[in-house]
Amino acid sequence: MNLYAVLLCGGKGERFWPKSRSNLPKQFVTLFGGKSLLEMTSERIKELCPVSRQLFVAHQRFAKLLIRELKAKQKNLILEPARKDTAPAIGLSAVILSRRDPEAIMVVLPADHIITPKRKFLSAVKVAAVLAQKGYLVTFGVVPTRADTGYGYIQYGEEVYRQGKICGYRVLEFKEKPDLKTAEQYLKSGNYLWNSGMFVWRVDMILEAFHRYMPQFYQSLLSFSQTLGSQREKMAIKRLYQKAPAISIDYGVMEKAENVCVVRAPFIWDDVGGWLALARHFPQDQNGNVVKGLWFGKNTKDCICYADQGVLATLGITGLVIVRSGDAVMVAEKNALSQLKDLLTEIAQDRQGRKFL
Amino acid sequence: MNLYAVLLCGGKGERFWPKSRSNLPKQFVTLFGGKSLLEMTSERIKELCPVSRQLFVAHQRFAKLLIRELKAKQKNLILEPARKDTAPAIGLSAVILSRRDPEAIMVVLPADHIITPKRKFLSAVKVAAVLAQKGYLVTFGVVPTRADTGYGYIQYGEEVYRQGKICGYRVLEFKEKPDLKTAEQYLKSGNYLWNSGMFVWRVDMILEAFHRYMPQFYQSLLSFSQTLGSQREKMAIKRLYQKAPAISIDYGVMEKAENVCVVRAPFIWDDVGGWLALARHFPQDQNGNVVKGLWFGKNTKDCICYADQGVLATLGITGLVIVRSGDAVMVAEKNALSQLKDLLTEIAQDRQGRKFL
Repeated sequence: MNLYAVLLCGGKGERFWPKSRSNLPKQFVTLFGGKSLLEMTSERIKELCPVSRQLFVAHQRFAKLLIRELKAKQKNLILEPARKDTAPAIGLSAVILSRRDPEAIMVVLPADHIITPKRKFLSAVKVAAVLAQKGYLVTFGVVPTRADTGYGYIQYGEEVYRQGKICGYRVLEFKEKPDLKTAEQYLKSGNYLWNSGMFVWRVDMILEAFHRYMPQFYQSLLSFSQTLGSQREKMAIKRLYQKAPAISIDYGVMEKAENVCVVRAPFIWDDVGGWLALARHFPQDQNGNVVKGLWFGKNTKDCICYADQGVLATLGITGLVIVRSGDAVMVAEKNALSQLKDLLTEIAQDRQGRKFL
Repeated sequence: MNLYAVLLCGGKGERFWPKSRSNLPKQFVTLFGGKSLLEMTSERIKELCPVSRQLFVAHQRFAKLLIRELKAKQKNLILEPARKDTAPAIGLSAVILSRRDPEAIMVVLPADHIITPKRKFLSAVKVAAVLAQKGYLVTFGVVPTRADTGYGYIQYGEEVYRQGKICGYRVLEFKEKPDLKTAEQYLKSGNYLWNSGMFVWRVDMILEAFHRYMPQFYQSLLSFSQTLGSQREKMAIKRLYQKAPAISIDYGVMEKAENVCVVRAPFIWDDVGGWLALARHFPQDQNGNVVKGLWFGKNTKDCICYADQGVLATLGITGLVIVRSGDAVMVAEKNALSQLKDLLTEIAQDRQGRKFL
């Protein structure tokens, strides 16, 4: 099977401000163990897709960063001239990949997730690849551990394929982020999974789906594909992205498609949605504090203290997230972190503040 | 009258960490309006004691800083080879000053207080100088506004001298920092004042007092005075400080002396004891926040946000003091600031932490 990994590097990663910045989104940041999430993603799939068969889809401003950090070659890069959602990124990758290898199977991986253990992940990808080979559009679903309202859900039906303990099921319906009550019902009912945003499919099948469910964009893709390898290619990508709708692959294709399977993830998955995720991946001290960097504290409980340089000192505080990164310091009550985006919007509107984003 | 100002620059200023550091104590730091507390103190007394009649007593490590920041001349500096308390600093100054002008009147001023308005301060110094001329050891007492347990108190008796509204009283007793109950009694009784640590006296009278109440140290001072102006002077200061007791002038002399007066301060006095003092000297926003530097916040109340560079962002917090200065960040609940000293001790014991003090 001709497996290729397509690593989506489009995330803005605002939720890790001030460690992540607009010129260094979450996936490029070394939050965990000295490696960026992108490096970790690339290494995780390497055994099935060596780097020569990995494509990095990113905004063009990150080209140098990708070449420097990942030793990516120019031919591994798919550079977007504008920030659209996942549907355009995947459509563009599919067209490019299909020219290179019409029998390619695409493994689409967001570059900013944490997945362990690698072995189980690779086994699941193999199962998904078998299903993809059969013509299915395959997604990975994560068994929910709580009634989380921050994820989309997948309702699944009968088993389609099994390899050992790893199962693929027919997808009945994609559900958008639910309210708490609905999320609780999903959790209880047992046949709902979190939509992880990872996909496996044959390149011809996903293009066929674009044809059917996003016909206008598909026509643009076809026109673009005429220019591939020519001098007009760069201009054509610009035109493609000017017209491309900013929608997700879930919304544009998956929710409408019929030949969709979900592989129930046998691995631990974390989309590392923000600072609180650190608490899930770093040990806590006896007072429930998670610390990275040089920290001294008295009467400090349940805090996340992160300093990528200098020293952090805390006195008499509880339940705060404190981050010092470069020229910025953030202090937030844990539950208030959900408002970080609003605060960044405010900072963006300020002439002096803008340079810290 | 031959008035000379002796500015005590010995404060460690730990309570303004991390803005103040061991190599830049509080008095040298520009916390208020672009001038250091020391500069403000020097300017405040200038009309009565021009800079040529100001002596700066400081640890020798601050010689360059004093010369650079205050344009102090070498002959204005009295450099201590070790950190002892105020009694040695004042004894040394008195001996040096008495050689220069045996009729000198010393105005002893800690270099890290805020006093306003200047006019009232100068009037009070003039009254104190009259009393000093008569032979009294004069201190300034501040009318207590609360039962503060952080100050020493002065119990005063009958009026000795008055000029307009400014009065000098005979001191009955110096009281060490009281417990809350005692402080409340002092406040209620009406004849107690806060000990401000500022003094005015004739140089011969304070030396006489050293002779009587600290006879051993007085003998050392006499031996030292023999070396003044000679090449042996520097070594002699070292010896003097090796033997000098680390005690305050209050404890060593004032509490025992009999000819002590207190001038009731007609001015507003603040010894700027720590970060909370900022709230008394900077305007608050409508949520009770005091802000210095570039700050963005949502749901932030009653906080002190201080950043001398970069940006500070806060979310959903109340009653905290956040300071970012140079390579250090401090986040403290307001009431917990009293433990800052303990925390700094901990940091001092850490090999990595030490360099941030």
